[in-house]
Amino acid sequence: MEQVTNLKDVLRMPHKHYLVLGGDLRSLALYHHLLNDGQSVSLFGFDHHPDENDKLSHKKSMQNLINQADVIIAPIPCTSSEAILNTPFHTHTITLNEILEVMRKDQIFVAGRIPASFETAGTGKGIHCIDLLEQEELAVLNAIPTAEGAIQAAMENMKVTLHDSNALILGFGRIGKILARMLQGIGANVFVAARKPSDFAWMKSYGYQPVAYSQLDHQLEQADVVFNTVPRVLLGRDHLKQMQKSCMIIELASKPYGVNFDTAKEEGIDVILASSLPGKVAPVTAAKYIKETVYRIVNESGGNA
Amino acid sequence: MEQVTNLKDVLRMPHKHYLVLGGDLRSLALYHHLLNDGQSVSLFGFDHHPDENDKLSHKKSMQNLINQADVIIAPIPCTSSEAILNTPFHTHTITLNEILEVMRKDQIFVAGRIPASFETAGTGKGIHCIDLLEQEELAVLNAIPTAEGAIQAAMENMKVTLHDSNALILGFGRIGKILARMLQGIGANVFVAARKPSDFAWMKSYGYQPVAYSQLDHQLEQADVVFNTVPRVLLGRDHLKQMQKSCMIIELASKPYGVNFDTAKEEGIDVILASSLPGKVAPVTAAKYIKETVYRIVNESGGNA
Amino acid sequence: MEQVTNLKDVLRMPHKHYLVLGGDLRSLALYHHLLNDGQSVSLFGFDHHPDENDKLSHKKSMQNLINQADVIIAPIPCTSSEAILNTPFHTHTITLNEILEVMRKDQIFVAGRIPASFETAGTGKGIHCIDLLEQEELAVLNAIPTAEGAIQAAMENMKVTLHDSNALILGFGRIGKILARMLQGIGANVFVAARKPSDFAWMKSYGYQPVAYSQLDHQLEQADVVFNTVPRVLLGRDHLKQMQKSCMIIELASKPYGVNFDTAKEEGIDVILASSLPGKVAPVTAAKYIKETVYRIVNESGGNA
Amino acid sequence: MEQVTNLKDVLRMPHKHYLVLGGDLRSLALYHHLLNDGQSVSLFGFDHHPDENDKLSHKKSMQNLINQADVIIAPIPCTSSEAILNTPFHTHTITLNEILEVMRKDQIFVAGRIPASFETAGTGKGIHCIDLLEQEELAVLNAIPTAEGAIQAAMENMKVTLHDSNALILGFGRIGKILARMLQGIGANVFVAARKPSDFAWMKSYGYQPVAYSQLDHQLEQADVVFNTVPRVLLGRDHLKQMQKSCMIIELASKPYGVNFDTAKEEGIDVILASSLPGKVAPVTAAKYIKETVYRIVNESGGNA
Repeated sequence: MEQVTNLKDVLRMPHKHYLVLGGDLRSLALYHHLLNDGQSVSLFGFDHHPDENDKLSHKKSMQNLINQADVIIAPIPCTSSEAILNTPFHTHTITLNEILEVMRKDQIFVAGRIPASFETAGTGKGIHCIDLLEQEELAVLNAIPTAEGAIQAAMENMKVTLHDSNALILGFGRIGKILARMLQGIGANVFVAARKPSDFAWMKSYGYQPVAYSQLDHQLEQADVVFNTVPRVLLGRDHLKQMQKSCMIIELASKPYGVNFDTAKEEGIDVILASSLPGKVAPVTAAKYIKETVYRIVNESGGNA
Repeated sequence: MEQVTNLKDVLRMPHKHYLVLGGDLRSLALYHHLLNDGQSVSLFGFDHHPDENDKLSHKKSMQNLINQADVIIAPIPCTSSEAILNTPFHTHTITLNEILEVMRKDQIFVAGRIPASFETAGTGKGIHCIDLLEQEELAVLNAIPTAEGAIQAAMENMKVTLHDSNALILGFGRIGKILARMLQGIGANVFVAARKPSDFAWMKSYGYQPVAYSQLDHQLEQADVVFNTVPRVLLGRDHLKQMQKSCMIIELASKPYGVNFDTAKEEGIDVILASSLPGKVAPVTAAKYIKETVYRIVNESGGNA
Repeated sequence: MEQVTNLKDVLRMPHKHYLVLGGDLRSLALYHHLLNDGQSVSLFGFDHHPDENDKLSHKKSMQNLINQADVIIAPIPCTSSEAILNTPFHTHTITLNEILEVMRKDQIFVAGRIPASFETAGTGKGIHCIDLLEQEELAVLNAIPTAEGAIQAAMENMKVTLHDSNALILGFGRIGKILARMLQGIGANVFVAARKPSDFAWMKSYGYQPVAYSQLDHQLEQADVVFNTVPRVLLGRDHLKQMQKSCMIIELASKPYGVNFDTAKEEGIDVILASSLPGKVAPVTAAKYIKETVYRIVNESGGNA
Repeated sequence: MEQVTNLKDVLRMPHKHYLVLGGDLRSLALYHHLLNDGQSVSLFGFDHHPDENDKLSHKKSMQNLINQADVIIAPIPCTSSEAILNTPFHTHTITLNEILEVMRKDQIFVAGRIPASFETAGTGKGIHCIDLLEQEELAVLNAIPTAEGAIQAAMENMKVTLHDSNALILGFGRIGKILARMLQGIGANVFVAARKPSDFAWMKSYGYQPVAYSQLDHQLEQADVVFNTVPRVLLGRDHLKQMQKSCMIIELASKPYGVNFDTAKEEGIDVILASSLPGKVAPVTAAKYIKETVYRIVNESGGNA
């Protein structure tokens, strides 16, 4: 029930002055989530976004906005290239140095993948620098839209239903676990390849078929779709040869990926690269998870922020 | 497990001479399913399908192929217009009369929506005419790809995840039931509107939130997505006004649909028309279900076919 | 969320004068549920129940209490023997005739299995007689505690976990459907035997393994537990011979049951008779469902009651 | 599908000479599982178990049996009191020293909670000593029968169904996770109290309601049953006062338990102590998990055993 959850959220929602500073559609959605929570919140760094360019706080100076804020929420990831803030919807370049100069003691700066130099300098000034991509809870929550995006990609490309298909997941980390659950919920026969005996025990308890990597061959023959979550080439040419031509690989890991794309092409197996899904498939949900993580961080950083 | 299921299927698989006569991609997939089962099967009516046009039985005369067959499987639906067989991948027109003339006593003719005139004449000649669209089991099975297609359409259009969204289903028939189950499996909060007290009891037992049509207003306010399965205008302008602008309607029913599309547009609510999904989203699965239904029909029609 | 459900319940809760007249622990729980809802409610027919015997309305005359009531809720089943009200917790005998004499036009009389003579006479006087056991919704809801009770009986008697066991259900009616769902939820491998092709289609959609009665032999060999819901002897000596000795039968149907108990004993297969479960395993839940059904009946019978 | 699983098991089943040496019903069931797998296996330490006392290998000397074995499987836990093997079904006392004396280099000795002195001495002789209770996979697998036993205990004692009840789990470790899943599968409203933000994220992804310990009061009011898995007194008198008298606590943790039993009694709250469940509720399943863990250990210990 949304109502009840919101009620609880309200109780633990820290009222502060927030500034959303740059970023993509998730940052924009985060700004609106904070507004909806009744927070005092400003937005800067979206001067050429069509919805925002004439009505918003970017008409004010960035310096003033940073001054007024308790919590500055910079992008995920923080920089586009060395020392430049990631601002795809802004005309002008903003450097991390500009930001650092005007920030002051006890302010909270949250962002994804904060450069070490910024963090060192910021901490030296008494700023609380907190990296969102190091928050385990956000990594778990981000696996939810990632898993949904993977399911969508599979549905768009398969000629059979996921229901009653043989779906093989490589890896049983965050994405593997949540994807397995959703696929089972749709009615797929879920197979998961992993390494650790305790992972196999968890799979049994949850009703997934455990697959040892040494047994991969046999499972690949039967698979209707393979989801890779492991950034290591697990599927070589011999594996690909065993797959049905109608089977496809949904690639969710980062480089070097679970398969060499050229090899797959030569063997006639489609690979669908599905990366950075949370921001693409469900920016509003992704922003909600960022908001909840920011609230938790602010609550934990105590009252003097 | 596919193996085991196949084993069982083999045991009850009636070995006959089949002819797949016209139809869309499902008919083509059906032909290949029958081949894979080791059946004696011919194909006719696909002379300009790129994969099939130079190698197949359509080089033979249709008359001969019908003669050799025990079971003729015509399209779903059977006709494209009055008395013309539905053959989107064939150059020449085939009439039902041509077929009827060469068919003989004890052959089985299965198709979707067989014209009454054909059925009467066929039955008069001792032909077993069986309408696939009147088979309850196939209607249930078709609801599976329909529900998946509806979920895909929702995922493609929503800015939030289905997981933890409020999904409202109008109607608790075959599609409503299977869609509710899958949405719950993905982690949505599932609400279902229906009329009968016993439907509400089933919803409670399955963990969906029952909604009386008189309470629809309240639920519409909270909904992130609405799936309509009822061919009757349930959502008037007042209902639409209560919905969030970010909510959308996935329309799964036939005319007159659950909402007037123009009214929805005026109220700023997106409607996504998702009809005839089984053949579109999962032709191979849809064909498998047709095959299983045909096998059951042939088994029941006894040994003299 | 309980809160929300309660809110809705309050909105459609018909405020009337109720009399709970006789019955077992469910009737007593029903009385307390009505009290908790803030209803005006009396209790009669529990003079030797320890909790109730000195403080309650049975000190008043039954005639007065019936007079004051809009809705009289008699037991399920209504009579213990011909024309005698079913009152296991009452010293004195109450006859249906006594009740009928003092009832008047427009009162509502609800009970389980109302004798035809009472219904005819009552209807003649303008009384609304409504049989709870003919309400489809209550039959569905009662299948919930029945299924839980069956699971409890299985857990108490099996030497393996239900999780990952092979559980075979005979019959796919209300109890079969709800039991299948719960067993799947615990992690059992669920097999269901039934007759209708459309039932098999539903099973596929829900992820249960369909079993034709003709294939029962094969499944019985592998079963760890069999739940029978069909009142017809399905398991003969030959079937019993094929079962593992460690397998047991949980009998949920009424006579003549799904197996002859003597034959089962001779073949070394335990049969656990688990009947009338709702009142035994969860009287408070069973009473809640009766209450909800009574509310619906009263709402539908309109305002002049 | 059992068949398929068995097939895989056969492939990775290490063929060795096994000796099951002492223990409870799980050890006996383990002996039979090994027999069924076609292993060469002996049993010793059950001379007064009714089924086993006249036909088995204990007629031979323990020394000979240990000599012949590659793998000796001692009880869980290994000792009943200091240095005495845990043999509830044996007349004579067996000391760990007797065993150690006759064991030799390269044999594998597996047991639960092996005394340090035994392990040191054994390792000194070149024996592979492996403690089953330190195997993460077995701890996970044991949580399955534990969770089922907890559900059975709840069903036996509650007057409402678990379905649609409010079930509150304290702790989100192995038992908490598996119990949450099963309760959700039966249809309970599952609430889980924990501490870590990432645990809350996992709960959200799985559809359980996260509860911070600071919000426990509110949840306790609504709970129909509380399952404690944390060996730390979490529920004080004030908490108990807030619970409904009809609510009960199923205690699954070890001392000092989640609640003081006397305090609970004074506050009128029933506590059901449900410990050591795997061996009690499902000895055959518990033994199967031990077998699988032993196989994995033997496989990993390589070929010279």
